[in-house]
Amino acid sequence: MSSSSPASSRSPAPVRLRELRPADRAPLDALLRATGSFPENELAVAMELIDEGLAKAAAGATLAPDDYRFLVAELPEPGAPPRVIGYVCWGQNPMSDGVFDLYWIAVDPRAQGGGAGRALMAAAEAEARARGGRMVLVETGGKPSYAPTRRFYERIGYVEIARLPDYFRVGDDKVIYARRLDGEGRS
Amino acid sequence: MSSSSPASSRSPAPVRLRELRPADRAPLDALLRATGSFPENELAVAMELIDEGLAKAAAGATLAPDDYRFLVAELPEPGAPPRVIGYVCWGQNPMSDGVFDLYWIAVDPRAQGGGAGRALMAAAEAEARARGGRMVLVETGGKPSYAPTRRFYERIGYVEIARLPDYFRVGDDKVIYARRLDGEGRS
Repeated sequence: MSSSSPASSRSPAPVRLRELRPADRAPLDALLRATGSFPENELAVAMELIDEGLAKAAAGATLAPDDYRFLVAELPEPGAPPRVIGYVCWGQNPMSDGVFDLYWIAVDPRAQGGGAGRALMAAAEAEARARGGRMVLVETGGKPSYAPTRRFYERIGYVEIARLPDYFRVGDDKVIYARRLDGEGRS
Repeated sequence: MSSSSPASSRSPAPVRLRELRPADRAPLDALLRATGSFPENELAVAMELIDEGLAKAAAGATLAPDDYRFLVAELPEPGAPPRVIGYVCWGQNPMSDGVFDLYWIAVDPRAQGGGAGRALMAAAEAEARARGGRMVLVETGGKPSYAPTRRFYERIGYVEIARLPDYFRVGDDKVIYARRLDGEGRS
């Protein structure tokens, strides 16, 4: 699921991307809630993935190919520590030979339009490509309130490849978008 | 993913369904391999889920709503212990309000056509319905070799709702089937 927004015509903010850290947990939880896009059950899943990522990082183990991977976006603040403004969670799908799933992306509503969403997506795609990925899939909602998110994906090269009627609730479809990294197909 | 087969016109074998036990691990591994339906990466995922299920059962903890659930099918053998001939793994999708995912079903090729696949599906659906499920989703392959599996789902009331091109490999689509438990929609 995702909550990101179209890039605006403003010049991009100097977004920096880095690995996930324990101190990110609270700002990411606040940021996910601030988007207003996620009901409680989805927030719980998002935080469960973040906690798994932090636990793996704390254990210092090498990640398995299909472990969840994270990138956090932050913005320098004059006279203050950088502010966490978004994150992406993605990973290789163990059932396929080169599909990467974009599990979650969220950008602080106050920072939307500043290029953080695009930067996070581009970085995840670059890592997927470097690991042999040939396709990135992302799932989102079909409701009108998700139209800005769907337009965001479409603008950065994603194509709707499937729609699961009544998936989230009756009347609330799941929409699956794909971006091919291998130049094959239309999507 | 799944490997099951159409029910034949033979009278159904006296299939018995029961909970997953540690002693099932080896026969289920052998059975999954015997189907010839699953490449190594998919076999690894199937066994990972079985191991998670066994670990939870060993810990004696109450299952969370979205934990993996299992049912094992066995056939009485004259003068021998019952033989494990199949299993189903399913669970509630934490992202939706009533969707259950049928993660895995497999039936021993020697027992296919005897009603074990149908019995496993019916039991999983009944449990899903009892837990407020309104839809069961199952994913399988689009290749010709999966045609018997797709026919099996279609015969027991599943409808193809989506197809993800080149999902498993280039030229090897994922097909998503749904069965509505709530009487809504066509699928």
